[in-house]
Amino acid sequence: MSTSFPDKPRIAIIGTGALGCYYGARLVKAGEDVHFLGRSGRAALTARGLKIKTPTERINLRKIQVYGSSAEIGPCDLVILATKATANEALKTILPPLLGPETAVLTLQNGLGVEEPVAEIAGPGHVIGAICYIGCMRTAPGVVDCSFPGLMTIGKFGKPAGERTNAIAALWRRAGVKCTAQDNLEAQRWHKLVWNVPFNGLAIVAGGVTTDVLLADEGMKLLARRLMEEIVEAAAKFGHEIPRSFVDLQFERTAKMGDYRPSSLIDFEEGRDVEIEEIWGEPVRRAKSVGVAVPRMEMLYWLIKQRIAARKLPKKRR
Amino acid sequence: MSTSFPDKPRIAIIGTGALGCYYGARLVKAGEDVHFLGRSGRAALTARGLKIKTPTERINLRKIQVYGSSAEIGPCDLVILATKATANEALKTILPPLLGPETAVLTLQNGLGVEEPVAEIAGPGHVIGAICYIGCMRTAPGVVDCSFPGLMTIGKFGKPAGERTNAIAALWRRAGVKCTAQDNLEAQRWHKLVWNVPFNGLAIVAGGVTTDVLLADEGMKLLARRLMEEIVEAAAKFGHEIPRSFVDLQFERTAKMGDYRPSSLIDFEEGRDVEIEEIWGEPVRRAKSVGVAVPRMEMLYWLIKQRIAARKLPKKRR
Repeated sequence: MSTSFPDKPRIAIIGTGALGCYYGARLVKAGEDVHFLGRSGRAALTARGLKIKTPTERINLRKIQVYGSSAEIGPCDLVILATKATANEALKTILPPLLGPETAVLTLQNGLGVEEPVAEIAGPGHVIGAICYIGCMRTAPGVVDCSFPGLMTIGKFGKPAGERTNAIAALWRRAGVKCTAQDNLEAQRWHKLVWNVPFNGLAIVAGGVTTDVLLADEGMKLLARRLMEEIVEAAAKFGHEIPRSFVDLQFERTAKMGDYRPSSLIDFEEGRDVEIEEIWGEPVRRAKSVGVAVPRMEMLYWLIKQRIAARKLPKKRR
Repeated sequence: MSTSFPDKPRIAIIGTGALGCYYGARLVKAGEDVHFLGRSGRAALTARGLKIKTPTERINLRKIQVYGSSAEIGPCDLVILATKATANEALKTILPPLLGPETAVLTLQNGLGVEEPVAEIAGPGHVIGAICYIGCMRTAPGVVDCSFPGLMTIGKFGKPAGERTNAIAALWRRAGVKCTAQDNLEAQRWHKLVWNVPFNGLAIVAGGVTTDVLLADEGMKLLARRLMEEIVEAAAKFGHEIPRSFVDLQFERTAKMGDYRPSSLIDFEEGRDVEIEEIWGEPVRRAKSVGVAVPRMEMLYWLIKQRIAARKLPKKRR
């Protein structure tokens, strides 16, 4: 498989949630050839297009190309996976019609172990992972409020970034997304867990609170730090050194975010799937597999699982 | 101070919550000389007395002696402390009028470190601790539903049981309370924590669930066991050996309790004080003071504290 990448790639975006709409709109606005695969909100997207609001701009796209099945789209040069990992079972039927011999599949999914299911279908050499540092929320079909456009880091699955990964990073930059290609995707994923594990998790377990409430509580702040230390210790065993300054940085960064509702909390409260296994379960299993005790992360994992299971209980029992 | 104890002791009961009413009613029914100190529900208790329901009997006492201040009661032979440890600040004014040179103060309070504040006021030689294995709930002033009368273990503070401790245990048995005097009160308190720490705590943190819900969840069940193991390890450092079979027994016992709401959960949900420091904070501090890491118990402690603090937040923020 060649690593060349066309100047004007044919792009499919799977999923029209907050991420699919936001990043897709950026690409459309930059003049790229974008084909959205949307299921539930398709009629609304076809009729009204996309409306994106960021702190500095508004993107209104009246007309976008939305499809109900991947067969209608056909093979693409770049497939952007913007559904949640909890829906990955459906990829077995969704992905194949989009794949050609040189298709790159870029997964925007959170957590650990999200490239593997894609690699099984598309082949490991086709998979690129993206880590999105972004704060955005879909308020209606095609309508996204992006409070923090942030940045994106991408890397090839299991290998250093090659020509194509760099070309895709450049494509994002042309579209106004701060994006860099990195050589160690796995290390980047562990870095992102340092924030996601404590803040997404504690926001749920502490009873549905925003990050400022967590930071204002001495116990929660200390617990967040202990959870980060467990992740740092586990990552180190896998050869990914995360400096102490990176841990400190998370607190500084979060303090500036105000009353931020982490995405997993929004998912939890809206009754949607939460990426429990990708953000908490898989890191716990990997840490334990190399002999690192992660008692707090495991406890958090169990508590979140229980809270999610409890949503199905009759009201009086939870 | 002598360790003799009169055949017909003058008894004061501080607190007319579930425990004060239940145990007090037992003593009154057995013909003992009981003086209740009740604050908020005093008028109702004076007017209507006590109504106790257990699985096997009903105790209705039309007339009981209720007082609004300890000065009206005066010195007693036995003072039974049935308020919560969270209200111990008030003991400095409540206790002294009840104390004579040979008064025994029996505290029914939960957790670790509950004898010390009493000892500071009454003197250590006067303090006896009780560990109550009981399930009961006050449904109205003077009205108690006791689903599980259970048993009581008492012991002298910091010393083996003496003549007086044995006499008080005998008093309870005459009143129909299964009671034994034990030589090592502290060891008994650690034993009780084995149940209280996980089940009282997780019932709150898991979102307000009954014990059957906790036992039905594999993660919560495993977490309860890990918490118990932390307590067993800490207790061992203090010389209190808790056998593995005791841990197993807690699960068997709890399975029989059905949809039981632990007392701390009831307190939490009713907006009342929860004995956070006595059940979780003090055990964590003591374990760490002897070098035992108790990461899960500490995390549970922090989470409960946060949940309780969050009750004061405006609704939309928690």
